[in-house]
Amino acid sequence: MIYFDNAATTKMYAECEEVLRHFCTEEYFNPSALYANSTKVTNEINRVREELLNTLHAPQGELIFTGSGTEADNMVMFGTKKWKNARIIVSEGEHDAIYNSALELKQQGYDVQFVSITKSGAVDIESLKSLLNENVALVSIMHISNETGAINDLQKISKLIRANSPKAIIHSDGVQAFGKIDINLRALGVDLYTISGHKIHAPKGVGALFIKKGVFVRPLIFGGGQEKGYRSSTENVAGICAFGVANAMGQSKFATNYSTKREIVEYLVAKLRENIPSAQIITPLENCAPNILTVAFENIRGEVLLHILEKDNILVGIGSACSSHKESRFKKLLALDDRHRDGIVRFSFSQFNTIEEVDIVVEKIVSALNEFGNFVRV
Amino acid sequence: MIYFDNAATTKMYAECEEVLRHFCTEEYFNPSALYANSTKVTNEINRVREELLNTLHAPQGELIFTGSGTEADNMVMFGTKKWKNARIIVSEGEHDAIYNSALELKQQGYDVQFVSITKSGAVDIESLKSLLNENVALVSIMHISNETGAINDLQKISKLIRANSPKAIIHSDGVQAFGKIDINLRALGVDLYTISGHKIHAPKGVGALFIKKGVFVRPLIFGGGQEKGYRSSTENVAGICAFGVANAMGQSKFATNYSTKREIVEYLVAKLRENIPSAQIITPLENCAPNILTVAFENIRGEVLLHILEKDNILVGIGSACSSHKESRFKKLLALDDRHRDGIVRFSFSQFNTIEEVDIVVEKIVSALNEFGNFVRV
Repeated sequence: MIYFDNAATTKMYAECEEVLRHFCTEEYFNPSALYANSTKVTNEINRVREELLNTLHAPQGELIFTGSGTEADNMVMFGTKKWKNARIIVSEGEHDAIYNSALELKQQGYDVQFVSITKSGAVDIESLKSLLNENVALVSIMHISNETGAINDLQKISKLIRANSPKAIIHSDGVQAFGKIDINLRALGVDLYTISGHKIHAPKGVGALFIKKGVFVRPLIFGGGQEKGYRSSTENVAGICAFGVANAMGQSKFATNYSTKREIVEYLVAKLRENIPSAQIITPLENCAPNILTVAFENIRGEVLLHILEKDNILVGIGSACSSHKESRFKKLLALDDRHRDGIVRFSFSQFNTIEEVDIVVEKIVSALNEFGNFVRV
Repeated sequence: MIYFDNAATTKMYAECEEVLRHFCTEEYFNPSALYANSTKVTNEINRVREELLNTLHAPQGELIFTGSGTEADNMVMFGTKKWKNARIIVSEGEHDAIYNSALELKQQGYDVQFVSITKSGAVDIESLKSLLNENVALVSIMHISNETGAINDLQKISKLIRANSPKAIIHSDGVQAFGKIDINLRALGVDLYTISGHKIHAPKGVGALFIKKGVFVRPLIFGGGQEKGYRSSTENVAGICAFGVANAMGQSKFATNYSTKREIVEYLVAKLRENIPSAQIITPLENCAPNILTVAFENIRGEVLLHILEKDNILVGIGSACSSHKESRFKKLLALDDRHRDGIVRFSFSQFNTIEEVDIVVEKIVSALNEFGNFVRV
């Protein structure tokens, strides 16, 4: 199998297996119990918490473990302070976790505004600027687009927001950025930041929200008061500890992994330009994640190409997996011409991929386009 | 180690290890992706869903996977329909997931009422009756008390509610009941029912909510629309599949496991009556979970006894682990005399425990009481 859909989810590191097993079958204690075995488990959770905060270069604050990145995003959207008729700004390119929460807030009567995105999938700074005013309570702009890999300049964006909307809380969904690029939350200037485990080779079912000191976030889930009251529920100890292992693994080989992925992307770009010149590269190569290349092929539907490749055991994405069963709102935003509009395919890599795999995949795409490129066009 | 705190959490079945590994490192695909590998994973999730619905003998409806029982409880408390000034009824003995959510709803202006509990920890039916009227929007009564193991007669309770509060949605937190006693949701007559994985030897981080057909529950978490839109987030595939394995294991040996636990409880009762006649049995033995025995010892604090036993590697609870770091609101409710009030210890068993362990534990308690029973009394 060739797995080029690592932005959807990743294969767990084999190194996480033992920690999963250990905290499920040996140190399986409820962290809230009163005996020392439980305190020890709590300490393990807190150790991972510290490691993740270090990786984020976070300012003073809390990291709250959740059941997913989506849950962390929802804590932000529904838990931050808002006044009557407050303006809430998110980008058109946000993941559904933010976008659909924003629609729900609009439904509740808030003044929800959507920032335009450029044709590379980054937020349009001028559009953002035009929406900022004194009435803004919350801005959520993703760090890296899950659809194109475009990096948003959060530092610039934060400064712009602080200057024009002094009361605004600034959040960024960093699910596609965490573990992929260097992150320095102190420099980026955001108040809240979402990360997720399963995008960095940890198990599914664990995310986290960074909350800067002094920023109020109401819990989404009430109960036993775990996670300092921010998120009640018995902690997913094994998942959290596996998240820690995955983070440590990723950080220890960060530079090598980055280069590996980046080389694969560049090689794929060169191969496509050589063999399929009609394919349009959407990802902004000068400012993007190391692991994502989104391409619009001509005269074929992305979904058709996905299924053709699948027959050869090659797995690719056609944008956010989470919304792939719906007609994507995203492809409408990229200002593609008619011949390319439906041909979007997202290739996303991990350090486990190889240049040789790219050769195979491009060859398969070439023959698919030759065979199906015209008559499958609807 | 002797682990007598299985109501707090359980050791995962070794049989779950392989399924965890498999869905994290082999079939690790995002269930929402479009290729067949993802559809296969989705089918696995749905197979587990059907198995759990079968175990529950559920009427037509949905089972929605969540990150915890607490999350499922919160979906009920905040997601069901309520009108202005609607009455919401929960019992005084509810788990914090319900109790603290109820306090939050009270804060929001709803007419929140608490049903009294009897001294065995079951809900007082007369108290419930007195609170029912036409204005009740929601009633949440746990199936089995996590503090005492008392079983509430949900069938009787449901009928009473339907007769007096026709608009009320009826929920039960079945976290301590699922896998412990036979459950027939069709007979019990509730609309919503919460279960959790880690109490039945599955991993932490997975719960589920049963929603009867026609009952409206608004999502707590918006996003990609997973779980039929009820709970967005990439599914915790491995955790869900391990939940399935644990359920199947538990069901296949249900009668044997039930007897084993029940015998241990009865043996402990007999040993306590013989050796520590001053100890008061709180659990209502004629109508209780097979695995919980809650006892009030005389002239010693439960917490002190817990720490003494811990030194001999014996782990017991002193009530809900989730609220064990706070002064328990529960012990005030049991109408114990001054000498017993602070002496509550909860012993909770699994089929992995033995009669021999009970002998050891009772012996340790006897010597602890002899040594510390008087002067540690505050």
